[in-house]
Amino acid sequence: MNRSNEAHSDRSMSSPGSDFLQLDIAEAPPGGRSDWLARQLRLAISDGRLPLGSRLPATRVLAAELRASRGVVTEAYQRLTEDGHVVGRGRAGTVVVAAPVTAATPSAGETRPPGLTRNPFAAPPGPDVFDSVRALPARIDLSPGVPDLAAFPRAAWLRAERSVLAELPAAQLGYGDPRGTPALRLAVADWLARNRGIRADPDDVLIVSGTAQTLTLLGEVLRADGISAVAVEDPGSLGARQHLRHRGLDTPPVPVDGEGVRVDALRDSGAPAVLLTPAHQFPTGVVLGGVRRREVMRWAERDGGLIIEDDYDAEHRYDRAPVPALRSMLPRHVIYAGSVSKLLAPALRVGWVVAPPRYRDALVEAKRFADLGNATLPQLVLARFMASGELERRLRLVRRSHRRRRDAMIEAIGAHLPGAVVHGAAAGLHLMVTFAGPGFDDTALAAAALARGVKVHPLSWHGQGRGRPGLVLGYAAGSGSNIAEGIAVLADVLREKSRARIRTG
Amino acid sequence: MNRSNEAHSDRSMSSPGSDFLQLDIAEAPPGGRSDWLARQLRLAISDGRLPLGSRLPATRVLAAELRASRGVVTEAYQRLTEDGHVVGRGRAGTVVVAAPVTAATPSAGETRPPGLTRNPFAAPPGPDVFDSVRALPARIDLSPGVPDLAAFPRAAWLRAERSVLAELPAAQLGYGDPRGTPALRLAVADWLARNRGIRADPDDVLIVSGTAQTLTLLGEVLRADGISAVAVEDPGSLGARQHLRHRGLDTPPVPVDGEGVRVDALRDSGAPAVLLTPAHQFPTGVVLGGVRRREVMRWAERDGGLIIEDDYDAEHRYDRAPVPALRSMLPRHVIYAGSVSKLLAPALRVGWVVAPPRYRDALVEAKRFADLGNATLPQLVLARFMASGELERRLRLVRRSHRRRRDAMIEAIGAHLPGAVVHGAAAGLHLMVTFAGPGFDDTALAAAALARGVKVHPLSWHGQGRGRPGLVLGYAAGSGSNIAEGIAVLADVLREKSRARIRTG
Repeated sequence: MNRSNEAHSDRSMSSPGSDFLQLDIAEAPPGGRSDWLARQLRLAISDGRLPLGSRLPATRVLAAELRASRGVVTEAYQRLTEDGHVVGRGRAGTVVVAAPVTAATPSAGETRPPGLTRNPFAAPPGPDVFDSVRALPARIDLSPGVPDLAAFPRAAWLRAERSVLAELPAAQLGYGDPRGTPALRLAVADWLARNRGIRADPDDVLIVSGTAQTLTLLGEVLRADGISAVAVEDPGSLGARQHLRHRGLDTPPVPVDGEGVRVDALRDSGAPAVLLTPAHQFPTGVVLGGVRRREVMRWAERDGGLIIEDDYDAEHRYDRAPVPALRSMLPRHVIYAGSVSKLLAPALRVGWVVAPPRYRDALVEAKRFADLGNATLPQLVLARFMASGELERRLRLVRRSHRRRRDAMIEAIGAHLPGAVVHGAAAGLHLMVTFAGPGFDDTALAAAALARGVKVHPLSWHGQGRGRPGLVLGYAAGSGSNIAEGIAVLADVLREKSRARIRTG
Repeated sequence: MNRSNEAHSDRSMSSPGSDFLQLDIAEAPPGGRSDWLARQLRLAISDGRLPLGSRLPATRVLAAELRASRGVVTEAYQRLTEDGHVVGRGRAGTVVVAAPVTAATPSAGETRPPGLTRNPFAAPPGPDVFDSVRALPARIDLSPGVPDLAAFPRAAWLRAERSVLAELPAAQLGYGDPRGTPALRLAVADWLARNRGIRADPDDVLIVSGTAQTLTLLGEVLRADGISAVAVEDPGSLGARQHLRHRGLDTPPVPVDGEGVRVDALRDSGAPAVLLTPAHQFPTGVVLGGVRRREVMRWAERDGGLIIEDDYDAEHRYDRAPVPALRSMLPRHVIYAGSVSKLLAPALRVGWVVAPPRYRDALVEAKRFADLGNATLPQLVLARFMASGELERRLRLVRRSHRRRRDAMIEAIGAHLPGAVVHGAAAGLHLMVTFAGPGFDDTALAAAALARGVKVHPLSWHGQGRGRPGLVLGYAAGSGSNIAEGIAVLADVLREKSRARIRTG
């Protein structure tokens, strides 16, 4: 063993101090000491001075060494905890559990998804760009569609899993019902009744691996039923469109205005089916208005139109009353799709679909051939979560933090992005931002921001053809400081771009 | 509250005795008291006298009440534990956790899979019959392809999950790499190197939801590559064939003899690809012989043939040396498919596929569009299981119980089914049984057995066209007493059938 190894071992064994961090509080701006300290600690985690699994100095020790108040240190640790970089371990202190991921240096164990050697924001986006960019790590991730992952109820999940494992009959570890476990289908049916006004028999519920799978299965089933086109909202989710197209369906665009999808244009398109986000249109955030609801119901009932209702984030709302699902009024014409991706975490890969009777068996068949059905244990754990009220409690909890983060984002946009207009803030997990000034290339902006470690979605991605430029910004997953920093980076990039335009123009 | 309810409440609150079971040990056959008692208790669980969650009487108490030795009671409880009907809860006693499922009365919470209103053993089997019968409950399930589910390491699984949840960075609860988590891809690559002689880079490993999904994804990818037929072994897995056909592929049959698949017939078929089970042919149990291996390698290398290697149960072997995977010798020509369904439990829905470079990106793309990738938590738990050696330890453990059960089945067949010939006993989780006597309708036999609560696969199911009649019997999932009882029922049914034939013939 050489001397430097020895020295390192000694240091990691002793009660940790802060001298190896080389911190000088005099560098901190007045009134911003906690922010500064949190940033320095993130840097130290990022460059390996505070490796994964190491303990942060005790707040008392670090405060004394910095000659700062203990409140400054406690607040900085709190920020890191909210970011998910450290966790309190009681008497074992505060432990580093996650390195800030930078775009330049993917963290250990993370690799760039395949096929991403080219600029992921190249326009027009290739068929894999949406999911690829989604899997791409970034220092500050403002992608839409991800809830507060640091708030995932790990302890409660583990408790529920312990109960499930203690009571599970062995035979249920074999091959199961491709529709999902009876317990989860029952819990989902109850959830839909309580939260979305939908009456569904548990036997009507099909458990799937998220809405991405729902769209792929539906693509297969609808094609077999002679349907070759599903109209989509414009702007609307790029990912959803790509999943339908993968199964050979056309996706004619139907414009969205301040009242939601334009039903006259839907009728003109001649498409026999449409994919809608009525409760909170993606990405504009518009709620489908009362008149439009009646129009779309008429289209379904009189013209035999089929509606796929992607109810992706309806449970998240702040300043408005809940909007009942279209399915609650049109059970024979609406295929309803939901998932836990926005309720708990996308990594769980659990969703549900409730279809009209004529598509039910074909969907079960498609699911059976896809993978024989979802895994059993996570279904049973989730069923407990839903049936016990744990999921609703948690939803109330994250609603508070989501609202704070939304407000932080709106404030940062107001401060840093003059001329920006914010849309769809009353619900969901993201904002749509457009700019009043001259047009600009939003994919170039997103690419430049990603190079600075900030991931956002260009609005034009989600539009077809002549998509309006802008940004789609998720606020739910990030901490307030991350959000402010991310918006500040966007402002920097915008300024650089407009300077470059003036120079070259 | 009426009197009978009161009486019931009183009984369930008090320390349980056995009088409500109405047992009379004098009814037990001499030398078979434990068997008899286990059967009586199963009946009591089944008809609700011992409801789920209730405690069995203490062995001491029951032995005294029956005037039997405590060993008789302990052994009966042991049988029920092995069956998965009860579990020991330390000082809380022995608790009922699973009712024996009877064909006539599905247990609460279990429902018959959709589309099974007709006789599931109707010949020829419809496209859903394999998976449907698989999900059908039976009192004694001798279906092939299920390991000892009562031995699932619940405590170790929960421990590993606790560690995973304690260390998981929050960002990994978002959308992940569609190929699977780096940790599991690494663990699988190591597993394949240690146990199957396969060298694979973790980036070559794609995590999927079991081999059923592998076949469906492959069907899509191969069709897009211009391949319209995948030859299959005859007899060979009905389920595998149906999954390939679902994606529009032809599955020309290639006969299997005592050395495995007939490569001359494979060549004659003109099919560009073949699905093989070289380590333990399903259902015959034959190991692909040395000469045949070289022939099939020549077919792949010279004629450009593509091999899909379904390595479904190669880790389970008893009386023979391990057989290396074909993939280990032909990495450029073999798509290798494995899963945990036979290693741990089908309900986990986790498998892996290692493809030649030319199919790798297309498979990842197909998986991405199927469901964006497997759920993260179970992948990380499994990765720990594999990397820590827990899975190998467990495999050694279940090998002993599997061997005992195999021997019990062979003994029961010898005692009850004269004229039966057993094939493929050296490895795997099932036996193939053929009969030396006159031919018979094996689907009718299976249907009659199912009506008596015993589920088996007719051999002709797995053959194409002129399939040989016989039975495919899984022994790994059932306890010794279940196996003996199941074989005895089969013998009864056979006797009835031959009597009927004699009467009508």
